[in-house]
Amino acid sequence: MVQIVPPALDRLIRDLSRLPGIGNKTAARLAMNILRRPSAEARELASALSELHDSIQLCSCCFTFSEDDPCVICADPRRNGALVCVVEQPGDLLAIEKTGSFHGHYHILHGVLSPMDGIGPGEIKVEALMARINSGTIREVLIATSSTVPGEATASFLIDLLHNKGVALTRLACGIPMGMDIKYADRHTLARAIETRTNAE
Amino acid sequence: MVQIVPPALDRLIRDLSRLPGIGNKTAARLAMNILRRPSAEARELASALSELHDSIQLCSCCFTFSEDDPCVICADPRRNGALVCVVEQPGDLLAIEKTGSFHGHYHILHGVLSPMDGIGPGEIKVEALMARINSGTIREVLIATSSTVPGEATASFLIDLLHNKGVALTRLACGIPMGMDIKYADRHTLARAIETRTNAE
Repeated sequence: MVQIVPPALDRLIRDLSRLPGIGNKTAARLAMNILRRPSAEARELASALSELHDSIQLCSCCFTFSEDDPCVICADPRRNGALVCVVEQPGDLLAIEKTGSFHGHYHILHGVLSPMDGIGPGEIKVEALMARINSGTIREVLIATSSTVPGEATASFLIDLLHNKGVALTRLACGIPMGMDIKYADRHTLARAIETRTNAE
Repeated sequence: MVQIVPPALDRLIRDLSRLPGIGNKTAARLAMNILRRPSAEARELASALSELHDSIQLCSCCFTFSEDDPCVICADPRRNGALVCVVEQPGDLLAIEKTGSFHGHYHILHGVLSPMDGIGPGEIKVEALMARINSGTIREVLIATSSTVPGEATASFLIDLLHNKGVALTRLACGIPMGMDIKYADRHTLARAIETRTNAE
């Protein structure tokens, strides 16, 4: 069979389709688009990719991606180091930072417990969290794992592990999203919102 | 405001979000994923990107992306050069090649007519198509632009332009997709399928 797709294009399609959520068709569409545009844009993207890992490391305290160690959040004296928010991934940190409502530190687990995939406490940053708590400066741990089955399982595990360590344990409130019509809320969310109803006065 | 996202990561997110169908959130998700994986994978993708434009050019006959000129299709003596399929983009050529049902040559327009975007016949490869037809070897032109408003407008324009050039003009059949339940077909497709019904005997 004749090679219709030029090898250089085929290689890029194969590489792109390794990314999450990018199937073969999307990879082909992206690669064709990159090829149609000026080569300077492809080179800019190439250079951004090759320099990525060189300049970024994990903060040795909270394990977020950072150019400095400690990261800008851990190093910021205006932030409250006694309050630590535990999240699954660095992207969750960014989502919380965008709210402007959190002024503590973070702890990135880099995953969730998932026994089926062989991911136990040793595979995520649980031991380092224990060490931070044992160091004695933390007063409250806000567990902000996702409201998914593995996220909830990880939260339960952390609550069991930390309940007698002398720190307050809190979770993100669960309920009706802002601006959502109640009749469109799914019944589990609505049930949770009723059970955890707050005082309106 | 403190820069929470490391500049190298921010740059990659910005570059990725220039790709079609990749918004800021998807770009951030992809960039985080690339960062979590071995740096060798990012370097491989970078190298594929930087070598892309160097080795690929347009075939001077059909204008598809190719490492050689003419491309493997135009150069293949077993293919029928008297039948030329006109498509919008190189990706359409790949889709048709995958069917294994077409054994002629191609002509890539690299776009569709779109007066609102300032794209007239001069911006797509229409003149080169005329030159190929005038050279006298072509007997049939299969117009395979998409079944969209600009695709149909481009097809109409080509039909007007070529109707007295001594070549047969054909179009892809339009109708019910294979395996589709009729009750789920949209009414325009169903209407077209009825109007262009074929003899079943």
